[in-house]
Amino acid sequence: MSGYNVAPLENLVEQFERMPGIGNKTAQRLAYYVLNLSKTEAEQLAGAVMDAHTKIHYCSKCCNLTDKDLCPVCANPARNHSVICVVETPRDATAIENTHEFKGVYHVLHGSISPLNGIGPDNLTIKELLSRLNEESVEEVIMATNPTVEGDATALYISKLLKPLGVKVTRLAYGIPVGGDLEYADEYTLAKALEGRNEI
Amino acid sequence: MSGYNVAPLENLVEQFERMPGIGNKTAQRLAYYVLNLSKTEAEQLAGAVMDAHTKIHYCSKCCNLTDKDLCPVCANPARNHSVICVVETPRDATAIENTHEFKGVYHVLHGSISPLNGIGPDNLTIKELLSRLNEESVEEVIMATNPTVEGDATALYISKLLKPLGVKVTRLAYGIPVGGDLEYADEYTLAKALEGRNEI
Repeated sequence: MSGYNVAPLENLVEQFERMPGIGNKTAQRLAYYVLNLSKTEAEQLAGAVMDAHTKIHYCSKCCNLTDKDLCPVCANPARNHSVICVVETPRDATAIENTHEFKGVYHVLHGSISPLNGIGPDNLTIKELLSRLNEESVEEVIMATNPTVEGDATALYISKLLKPLGVKVTRLAYGIPVGGDLEYADEYTLAKALEGRNEI
Repeated sequence: MSGYNVAPLENLVEQFERMPGIGNKTAQRLAYYVLNLSKTEAEQLAGAVMDAHTKIHYCSKCCNLTDKDLCPVCANPARNHSVICVVETPRDATAIENTHEFKGVYHVLHGSISPLNGIGPDNLTIKELLSRLNEESVEEVIMATNPTVEGDATALYISKLLKPLGVKVTRLAYGIPVGGDLEYADEYTLAKALEGRNEI
């Protein structure tokens, strides 16, 4: 836009461009969308951005995101508080929640151990997980970290910390995804699926 | 997210979902991006949204977007003010501006005549274009509306209004796009390209 600069518009395009997966063309489309909003709608959008920032914090128990003291899962007495599913991010917890299969509670690590990126165990909420295990009677901890090198390392690290406490530690099953195609499954996944085969 | 609702987060996701080309997954990714911003960055984003809304309005001459009285193009004495390029949207003007080939000025219609969508000539800035022609000495008006039924109809409508004023009205050339493939060009485009062939 050389020679054709409308500062507030350029600024908004730049803000959108910083977002993940948003390129210049999409950022422009979004900026023009904002321009076409009514004043109230623009205020709602700006307000939602600030609200998300000021009102949302970590649940005092599971470190998931919430706008209250406890997140809805931790505050729900109908959930099984003796089974804790450890996930890397709040979005992973949402993904598991969407299966409607898990009735326990969560613990959100907010990352995985990744020395290359300078993230060690102290940067995660492992301390909070340990104090939870000391305070409550927990039967099982399900490690639902991502099936990546970092996720596996994190799962292994935490399981070694928890074993002495006498708590059962499990890991999500590796295998071929439902609806997938054997032909296109990578060797590593297929080997894990073979290894973990069940009797039918 | 049944049973797992963080109101401010849901609200933000909803706001992003309304944007063009943004689905639920992308909206969630953007919402989490906003959560991870620092307070200053979130304020900048919210501020940019409001600024774009309060500071940007139509150029008093060409109806393009600007934060001043005249847009940078209209305010530039080095541009040829006797050639007006008529476009549908500010983004079309930007696209032409990016070619660095056009030295004239623009006129933004903010839409095209589309009876099906209830948009008639009165909803566009045609009145403003006519008063410009009366006030200034204009030699040529280039119709750069989109090569669609609506764009063509708009170009035809405006050219019929302008012809009696003795002004030259031209239309962008139809033809095969540079770098395109004859094999994949549609018949209509190819026929137009044949019709508009030039001597080499």
